[in-house]
Amino acid sequence: MSELRRDPLRHQWVVVAPERARPPEGGRAERPSEPAGACPFCPGREAATPPAVLVLHPGPRGPHDWCVRVVPERVPALRVEGNLEASAEGMYDRVTGIGAHEVVIESPDHEASLADLPQAQVERVVEAWQSRLRDLFRDRRLEHVLVVKHHGVQAGARLAHGHSQILATPVIPGRAAARIARARAWFRDRRRCLLCDLLDQELATGSRVVTSDPHVVVLCPYASRVPFELLVIPRRHGAHFGQAAPDEVAALARALGETLRRLRRGLGDPPYHLVIHTAPNPEAYHPTVEPGPELERAWHWHLEILPRLGPVTGWASDAFVNPTPPEDAAAFLRSLPD
Amino acid sequence: MSELRRDPLRHQWVVVAPERARPPEGGRAERPSEPAGACPFCPGREAATPPAVLVLHPGPRGPHDWCVRVVPERVPALRVEGNLEASAEGMYDRVTGIGAHEVVIESPDHEASLADLPQAQVERVVEAWQSRLRDLFRDRRLEHVLVVKHHGVQAGARLAHGHSQILATPVIPGRAAARIARARAWFRDRRRCLLCDLLDQELATGSRVVTSDPHVVVLCPYASRVPFELLVIPRRHGAHFGQAAPDEVAALARALGETLRRLRRGLGDPPYHLVIHTAPNPEAYHPTVEPGPELERAWHWHLEILPRLGPVTGWASDAFVNPTPPEDAAAFLRSLPD
Repeated sequence: MSELRRDPLRHQWVVVAPERARPPEGGRAERPSEPAGACPFCPGREAATPPAVLVLHPGPRGPHDWCVRVVPERVPALRVEGNLEASAEGMYDRVTGIGAHEVVIESPDHEASLADLPQAQVERVVEAWQSRLRDLFRDRRLEHVLVVKHHGVQAGARLAHGHSQILATPVIPGRAAARIARARAWFRDRRRCLLCDLLDQELATGSRVVTSDPHVVVLCPYASRVPFELLVIPRRHGAHFGQAAPDEVAALARALGETLRRLRRGLGDPPYHLVIHTAPNPEAYHPTVEPGPELERAWHWHLEILPRLGPVTGWASDAFVNPTPPEDAAAFLRSLPD
Repeated sequence: MSELRRDPLRHQWVVVAPERARPPEGGRAERPSEPAGACPFCPGREAATPPAVLVLHPGPRGPHDWCVRVVPERVPALRVEGNLEASAEGMYDRVTGIGAHEVVIESPDHEASLADLPQAQVERVVEAWQSRLRDLFRDRRLEHVLVVKHHGVQAGARLAHGHSQILATPVIPGRAAARIARARAWFRDRRRCLLCDLLDQELATGSRVVTSDPHVVVLCPYASRVPFELLVIPRRHGAHFGQAAPDEVAALARALGETLRRLRRGLGDPPYHLVIHTAPNPEAYHPTVEPGPELERAWHWHLEILPRLGPVTGWASDAFVNPTPPEDAAAFLRSLPD
């Protein structure tokens, strides 16, 4: 029999309906079709992008003179230039499009996806995300930074060369403020972090855990909205992804690579979205979410992976129906070699 | 320059970035591939579905003995049989999968989509939605009913024969409770309905209105999350779609048919999601949302159309970036014949 499930972080009911299970469709991520020679992200074509805002260099004797480049989007959705102005349009709210929109080129290799990269290279990517987050938060007009990756055309990728995106905004655009408010209410009531509690429960139960090591836990959330939804959560409490320590970065990179390879092995390289949920800028001039010690103790950064094994309708229909119980998804992923 | 926009109903910032506009992709809704002879929804194959819960008959001398059939889903996500039981799983919430999951077969014609049907037939479809909503609310275990349609494989349609879905749930699954809470806060503060205010402002401004008649207004919302997002709002205040009067049903059907034909003419039959946002069951045994006169005055039912002109990433990335300002979308749709 099906059931409706809800977790205290997202606080949204999901119908888990295993009777509706069917073989996953749309499994294989389609690569955007662009010839390697014309790719603006390939080594030798650096002039095809705006000047880099960050370049990470490989160790001595690397094959290229960069291993990760971060460049502004050619046609950014938001820009740092201009004044941040808030205005009303009758009952509506409007803010000028101040912010940043950047592309993280994840390796010099045109063909490699994040799942193909060696551990050290994935670490460089995670370091680049962190570095950009920290730098963007120096602009106190910016309250929020999204780190996001879309793998496969079906998930919105537009260029074949592996890349992720950074979107810095002067307000909190999505559901983050509501999630933070729920974590805060949990903390106020209990003096404990919601995600620390969640980790304790998941590790004790075990059925939804895919992998865990001393630093990070990978699990399928109780109220998974889509089949094979995944959370990667650091064990050590911390509100800010930008402040994760080097050993955590290394563990995150390893867990991420492993998890993406399991998805590929088990489900045939599915399209996916990846997003990091981190606390807003503690130094923001006009915070939506009140910063301070309470927020630091209540919020716990984490990373979400949302495979796209078919058309996703729940965001539009206002109800997610997931045919794959997360316990089954986790068991399947555990059964695969990493 | 781009801007961030927010409306008081959804209360979520959307980046409107016209510089990122590009020709719409994935325009044409793909039809699920199933031969007409094997279609379980075609006349003569009534035995291929579970017994109908509602059959609407055409006027005298219609070509078939039904014009709209509503049948239970063959493998429903939720069922009326069983006990409604709520339980905890540690910090999580769980409710047994009590509810209903039905399919509205929109016409006997295998080939016709909602945009093809004559006005009278679209009225029958809207009447069927209403009738099922009213009937399902007689089960006081059920709090919420979703009326939803996915057009095109890209939007999640699985059968070619035109159909919509009804999902009745014992809890409010999506964002409806939050939207209702915001409308209620607006009402408490002002003694006015949020959507009545929104209609007044939109009709006064005019730039986002596509069509209007004495009963309904079709507009592109100020903080449209996706290009060509549309709202169909009845002018007469009412919390319950199930209580819309026959003249409103007729006007809604006409506006819906017209709008879908404009979308098809202008954008080449795009895939879309359609969803009706109506108030929860006022007689529910265990309401999430407190019923009563305040709710009746604060909530205003409406219909949403979400074209899917490319992969939608905002629900996953936690930020919607929309390259088509709703003013441009509305002007384009107005310029087309209906």
